[in-house]
Amino acid sequence: MKKIEAIIRPERLTETIKGLKSIGITGFTVSQVVGRGKQKDTKGVYRGKNYQVTLHPKVKLEIVLSDYLVESTIQTVVKAAQTGEEGDGKIYVYPILEAYNIRTGKFDDDIDDLVNREEGL
Amino acid sequence: MKKIEAIIRPERLTETIKGLKSIGITGFTVSQVVGRGKQKDTKGVYRGKNYQVTLHPKVKLEIVLSDYLVESTIQTVVKAAQTGEEGDGKIYVYPILEAYNIRTGKFDDDIDDLVNREEGL
Amino acid sequence: MKKIEAIIRPERLTETIKGLKSIGITGFTVSQVVGRGKQKDTKGVYRGKNYQVTLHPKVKLEIVLSDYLVESTIQTVVKAAQTGEEGDGKIYVYPILEAYNIRTGKFDDDIDDLVNREEGL
Ligand SMILES: Nc1ncnc2c1ncn2[C@@H]1O[C@H](COP(=O)(O)OP(=O)(O)OP(=O)(O)O)[C@@H](O)[C@H]1O
Ligand SMILES: Nc1ncnc2c1ncn2[C@@H]1O[C@H](COP(=O)(O)OP(=O)(O)OP(=O)(O)O)[C@@H](O)[C@H]1O
Ligand SMILES: Nc1ncnc2c1ncn2[C@@H]1O[C@H](COP(=O)(O)OP(=O)(O)OP(=O)(O)O)[C@@H](O)[C@H]1O
Ligand SMILES: [Mg+2]
Ligand SMILES: [Mg+2]
Ligand SMILES: [Mg+2]
Repeated sequence: MKKIEAIIRPERLTETIKGLKSIGITGFTVSQVVGRGKQKDTKGVYRGKNYQVTLHPKVKLEIVLSDYLVESTIQTVVKAAQTGEEGDGKIYVYPILEAYNIRTGKFDDDIDDLVNREEGL
Repeated sequence: MKKIEAIIRPERLTETIKGLKSIGITGFTVSQVVGRGKQKDTKGVYRGKNYQVTLHPKVKLEIVLSDYLVESTIQTVVKAAQTGEEGDGKIYVYPILEAYNIRTGKFDDDIDDLVNREEGL
Repeated sequence: MKKIEAIIRPERLTETIKGLKSIGITGFTVSQVVGRGKQKDTKGVYRGKNYQVTLHPKVKLEIVLSDYLVESTIQTVVKAAQTGEEGDGKIYVYPILEAYNIRTGKFDDDIDDLVNREEGL
């Protein structure tokens, strides 16, 4: 089990959620963040108290899923979130050790995912 | 050391914090998120521009703790956050490689937790 | 590749970003959180419905970087975010399995970091 964390442009969120749905991924968590990537401009140079850092609004999308879904999910997010301009964002993959569904109190594991898939989720 | 991340109903946060306190867990971080789980309804079908995805407000609770506390903490969160209705949320467990306390600049490790525990924290 | 997550005082964010920039780290994500650490006071005792937990506003700073940058980045964050008073916050280190740049659709790996570094990033 893995977590895919995608930091994307807010205006690409709806398209990205549609893309995920089209490959059967309907579970995810979204939060508002701000950030910066590599700075290639000459702005933002140190000027003591006057120094201001511009942070860009982004959306963080977190998707916990079975290992076999990681590759197709990354491709789907890249396709839906990409504009080709600087600032399109990042995708990070984390290991998940255990997952539980609070309603059932049971382990939410890979087998569970496979069963749902066979049922045509 | 592990991180337990619980995505719960906002209205169960106070009860969950009480539960954590009752087992000696007082350190945690909370953030506001929105999300979706499995979609079992027929709403939300694609309709081009009219398509709207409903995202439900949830609270993300993050608790970094020693390995020996993971199981009891999960049980406590499930008990406090569960309503039995769909949408109760998820618990995910992540590995943590290192932890530091910024005030002391020192490693915040398992042994530290054990020492605090013996002192009756 | 690792993620450093620092939970710091909001008023130390600008100083911390300056410190990161001074060691060549310009990519990061920031979010607003609230939290608690160890409770050493006698306030907050259970009083049924009247019980209220005070959550302190903090800022979560997330930095994904190559392994060789972890130690110096932690030292830099501690130096910039530390006041010496309780509540200065925590630093947690997580493993990252994969990283992608959405604009290029390519893997964002350690070698990439080294190349950028040689180019004087
Ligand atoms: N190293 C990093 N760690 C954590 N978050 C990052 C990092 N780099 C970028 N981000 C997040 O991703 C967002 C978008 O970054 P961005 O796409 O500009 O990265 P970049 O490396 O500069 O690539 P590009 O050249 O395509 O702009 C940032 O606003 C920030 O939230
Ligand atoms: N796969 C996932 N990845 C990340 N977050 C998720 C995932 N699934 C659910 N969540 C988060 O948990 C919240 C609650 O999900 P929910 O409890 O409805 O899950 P579910 O699998 O549909 O279970 P139930 O049948 O009990 O409703 C969502 O709003 C979302 O924030
Ligand atoms: N175990 C934890 N898990 C997750 N987040 C934590 C944990 N402990 C603290 N935090 C986060 O760090 C913030 C600051 O914690 P704080 O610095 O007060 O920790 P502390 O252990 O009480 O140290 P100090 O004695 O220096 O106050 C909290 O508000 C919370 O957001
Ligand atoms: Mg950029
Ligand atoms: Mg659900
Ligand atoms: Mg404290």
